Amino acid sequence: MNANPKFLAAEATVDEAAVQPLPNSRKVYLEGSRPDIQVPMREISQSDTPTAFGGDKNPPVFVYDTSGPYTDANIRIDIRSGLAPLREKWIEERNDTELLTGPTSAYGIERLNDAKLAELRFNLKRQPRRAKAGMNVTQMHYAKRGIITPEMEYIAIRENQNREWMLKNHPEIITRQHAGQSFGANIQSFITPEFVRDEVACGRAIIPNNINHPESEPMIIGRNFLVKINANIGNSAVSSGIAEEVEKMTWAIRWGGDTVMDLSTGKHIHETREWIIRNSPVPIGTVPIYQALEKVDGKAEELTWEIFKDTLIEQAEQGVDYFTIHAGVLLRYIPMTAKRMTGIVSRGGSIMAKWCLAHHKESFLYTHFEEICEIMKAYDVAFSLGDGLRPGSGYDANDEAQLGELKTLGELTQVAWKHDVQVMIEGPGHVPMHLIKENMDLQLKYCHEAPFYTLGPLTTDIAPGYDHITSAIGAAMIGWYGTAMLCYVTPKEHLGLPNKTDVKDGIMAYKVAAHAADLAKGHPGAQMRDNALSKARFEFRWDDQFNLGLDPDKAREFHDETLPQEGAKLAHFCSMCGPHFCSMKITQDVRDFAKAQGIAEEEALKKGMEVKAVEFVKKGAEIYHKS
Amino acid sequence: MNANPKFLAAEATVDEAAVQPLPNSRKVYLEGSRPDIQVPMREISQSDTPTAFGGDKNPPVFVYDTSGPYTDANIRIDIRSGLAPLREKWIEERNDTELLTGPTSAYGIERLNDAKLAELRFNLKRQPRRAKAGMNVTQMHYAKRGIITPEMEYIAIRENQNREWMLKNHPEIITRQHAGQSFGANIQSFITPEFVRDEVACGRAIIPNNINHPESEPMIIGRNFLVKINANIGNSAVSSGIAEEVEKMTWAIRWGGDTVMDLSTGKHIHETREWIIRNSPVPIGTVPIYQALEKVDGKAEELTWEIFKDTLIEQAEQGVDYFTIHAGVLLRYIPMTAKRMTGIVSRGGSIMAKWCLAHHKESFLYTHFEEICEIMKAYDVAFSLGDGLRPGSGYDANDEAQLGELKTLGELTQVAWKHDVQVMIEGPGHVPMHLIKENMDLQLKYCHEAPFYTLGPLTTDIAPGYDHITSAIGAAMIGWYGTAMLCYVTPKEHLGLPNKTDVKDGIMAYKVAAHAADLAKGHPGAQMRDNALSKARFEFRWDDQFNLGLDPDKAREFHDETLPQEGAKLAHFCSMCGPHFCSMKITQDVRDFAKAQGIAEEEALKKGMEVKAVEFVKKGAEIYHKS
Repeated sequence: MNANPKFLAAEATVDEAAVQPLPNSRKVYLEGSRPDIQVPMREISQSDTPTAFGGDKNPPVFVYDTSGPYTDANIRIDIRSGLAPLREKWIEERNDTELLTGPTSAYGIERLNDAKLAELRFNLKRQPRRAKAGMNVTQMHYAKRGIITPEMEYIAIRENQNREWMLKNHPEIITRQHAGQSFGANIQSFITPEFVRDEVACGRAIIPNNINHPESEPMIIGRNFLVKINANIGNSAVSSGIAEEVEKMTWAIRWGGDTVMDLSTGKHIHETREWIIRNSPVPIGTVPIYQALEKVDGKAEELTWEIFKDTLIEQAEQGVDYFTIHAGVLLRYIPMTAKRMTGIVSRGGSIMAKWCLAHHKESFLYTHFEEICEIMKAYDVAFSLGDGLRPGSGYDANDEAQLGELKTLGELTQVAWKHDVQVMIEGPGHVPMHLIKENMDLQLKYCHEAPFYTLGPLTTDIAPGYDHITSAIGAAMIGWYGTAMLCYVTPKEHLGLPNKTDVKDGIMAYKVAAHAADLAKGHPGAQMRDNALSKARFEFRWDDQFNLGLDPDKAREFHDETLPQEGAKLAHFCSMCGPHFCSMKITQDVRDFAKAQGIAEEEALKKGMEVKAVEFVKKGAEIYHKS
Repeated sequence: MNANPKFLAAEATVDEAAVQPLPNSRKVYLEGSRPDIQVPMREISQSDTPTAFGGDKNPPVFVYDTSGPYTDANIRIDIRSGLAPLREKWIEERNDTELLTGPTSAYGIERLNDAKLAELRFNLKRQPRRAKAGMNVTQMHYAKRGIITPEMEYIAIRENQNREWMLKNHPEIITRQHAGQSFGANIQSFITPEFVRDEVACGRAIIPNNINHPESEPMIIGRNFLVKINANIGNSAVSSGIAEEVEKMTWAIRWGGDTVMDLSTGKHIHETREWIIRNSPVPIGTVPIYQALEKVDGKAEELTWEIFKDTLIEQAEQGVDYFTIHAGVLLRYIPMTAKRMTGIVSRGGSIMAKWCLAHHKESFLYTHFEEICEIMKAYDVAFSLGDGLRPGSGYDANDEAQLGELKTLGELTQVAWKHDVQVMIEGPGHVPMHLIKENMDLQLKYCHEAPFYTLGPLTTDIAPGYDHITSAIGAAMIGWYGTAMLCYVTPKEHLGLPNKTDVKDGIMAYKVAAHAADLAKGHPGAQMRDNALSKARFEFRWDDQFNLGLDPDKAREFHDETLPQEGAKLAHFCSMCGPHFCSMKITQDVRDFAKAQGIAEEEALKKGMEVKAVEFVKKGAEIYHKS
């Protein structure tokens, strides 16, 4: 069965702009203990330091790469066929899963048999996989039994970003010399596969990778690893189609999205999801209650456990890596929201609140939680326990409804862990700066150090149109305090649906926040890229400065607006001061001076600089006025 | 003498887009103890809450307004004549100043007599003003003697943002109900004129308003007041002209710039500055060494005290309100920068470093510091003691050069205070999050609580093109910790010169940071606008949500991209979930439910909700499915 050619011609082409390698970058792979562990990285090459500044050979810089095979110049991707299932062999050789003949969910079967959907349907040759009866196939289950999976080893290599090589060959780019700084104190410590296993075993980190998503490149979410970011995509009742969503996914990972949530609420949720998963090298998360609600025509009170359960199985067999489940919205918390400024703003939270009020019962998410765990462990889907009662304004931050639910999420975490199901906890939302640490500390306490995954938080409510910034502030801080993954907020938050520009703006703000948090946490090696870029900046290596940045295209475009000539990128000055005077250039004079005297800079003054000052005027006059 | 008509026709028109009042906003004035104290505010009117949500009459919200008379619909501004000198009478009646017949600086006289400059020159009818011999005309001087000036009273009224009226008439918008929150604890405390005087007297705050800039609307910089932001403008050797800079100034204050620094380095610095000052309702700062350097053709080592002194007088007589002076760059600190990643990146710092090395002497800024104070107090120019050795990368943050200079700035602060000259201290720059508090705490300690004025700081160096965001994170945090004014960073930082779009983007990021800091500090009333906007958002009052935001134009534009129909702005749903399902709507159901039962929400559950649940299903089905 082949997908409909009309659809393919019209929609299914890869956006060429999203698959070119970034400038001066190439994909490299680090091999693990076995040849099929090939961990991708982006190698950014640099030019030499100009002779006037010392003529250094500058090493390549290796950065964590979320973009998958799309940016590998040697791989040609046809999104009609999906990505290669790189984890398939690892899953198979564990010998605890079986291939099904087809989907087992009622809805999955119905969609597969609906002839009208043929032209939307992904070229589905794959058979879903499920744990054999009585088996548990979660990474946590293996970890608790002391097994280091290939996924764990892959992650350890990935997190180290080739720092061992860098430290051995170019320590000057990493280490920090100033006394009294906590920076880089643990620069010599590397993430080991055993450390990964241990963090997963105790629940401090999760590896979201459903056995039905073997295309995914393993990654980890936990506060002792690099801070990750999530990008939300998804069509809604009022906008966008399948191809557009696939394109948003490839766009989001190109710029650094570590996971992608498909929050589609419109038609063809099932088919859209299949296309996204088959083409995604990053874990995919969803909120299954959204789709369940579609199945009952939007009538929350008509939701049932059976419909929800079927939805979980449907999505698990497609390969969703983590499910947001709002199981902490308990009856007793709901009236607490009545006195809020902005009530319940989580969509999932309000669906469940409506259901609970209508039935006057605790929700089926709560009462059937152990059955949900049984499903999760048969496919290794991780929980993202939803914060259905998160605050929708700074006014409502850290209130009793929010914190009550958080405690319940902590209790559910322990239930899930009993089943060896991986868990992270979702957090707000809207929290002014002075309440962020309290929120983080309570999460660690109530939820037994399960990873926190927050949306922002927004630190003020007065800037619609700029909520990527109001929230990047909160995100950086909560990341520093211990949040493991940051869910991005785009400039369109509260206003409309993000287009590609908004997706990139959101990603960029959150890459900044996550990296600022890594630096503040003293993550080993986080400073490597900052140092390389700062050195390039100081030495007027303009192209290196652009290329080492998060967004080389934008940096180059901004520079060229003021100084468009190609020669300006070789110039030892910039548009701020012009060619005649430059502070960086003078610093170089200071440095040359200290060096030329052949004495340590601290002693320069003591040893009679008065005499040498005359020499400097002569020499400086020559060096300085040539431009 | 009239300015050249050619110049006027070509350049001197006001940008109409920059002088329209913002949507649903009008300028109102609060009168002080005398009729000529008229404090401007922007009143944003709101629509009523839809009947379905309670039909509240929503009060107008008053916000601090930096835009000056430009946005007063009753005032027509001709930038050829400049703004009305609102403080002139206050200055005159103190009877401690005298009008000069013309500029007293050699350079000022030279420029005035240069016929070639006629067409660039502002229509200069005004005579400069100076303190009478032996008099000290600084606000600090008055404050120390117990005098409350009209400027101080103006500021007290301005800082309160009509909160007294709001609290009396609409306390629900301000107060916070949840227990255990520090928010709004001091909601009942108002800024009094006496408090302003006391803060200025002890040096914790400054009022930058040169007696030669009577057009300025008094404002205060101190950590017990609203956090302020500064916008840099200025042409350079490679770009832009006078009209463009005046336009950038009006643009910057429209969006919230509290002060503007003119960092011009190109031709016609003197004339550009005159146009800017005469048309600026906000204080103007400069870095006089930039102009002094132009006077010696860019040869730093040829700078002299005499040239610098003449420049100070020239600018003081034009009306510059604060001078950045890098008097802390001492000989012994310079070699400390040789081992840095990015040496000296401050332009002023590197000029002075070059001079010091060339002459092997402490700089004339340091050795003549008391003479500088004599000039400052004759015009009431405030010091902004420059951080010439600020770090240019996270790697160099809080190093011995930076902190050594900071200590010297603290010593100079005490010298300035001996002369009753107002002082603020400039700070970095590039500082990772975990080092920001240390920097702030040391500044307060070393500089005896003189206000801190920081550039960002940038919390990571890897995002050229996004440094308004890398730095808004640091700015919000350092503002919370105690910084009084934040110097904005635009997206073009490190790459090129900001255009109008960049100026606005920089301002917006910094308004967000400053307001987030005000909230975190618990500034009385800061939450008022957040609460009003959140309420509007919750009630689907789309236009109110846009208008209460920092940038109504952008918010409206973003909304209309997804839902362009005018009717959508009256709709009780948004593009995220579409018309069929909405979480905010459900919350309203929860609230209606709690209300309809006529019992406190905490008791709802206890009183047998089981019975009522049936009613809810009936009622809910009606309310809920009509859309």
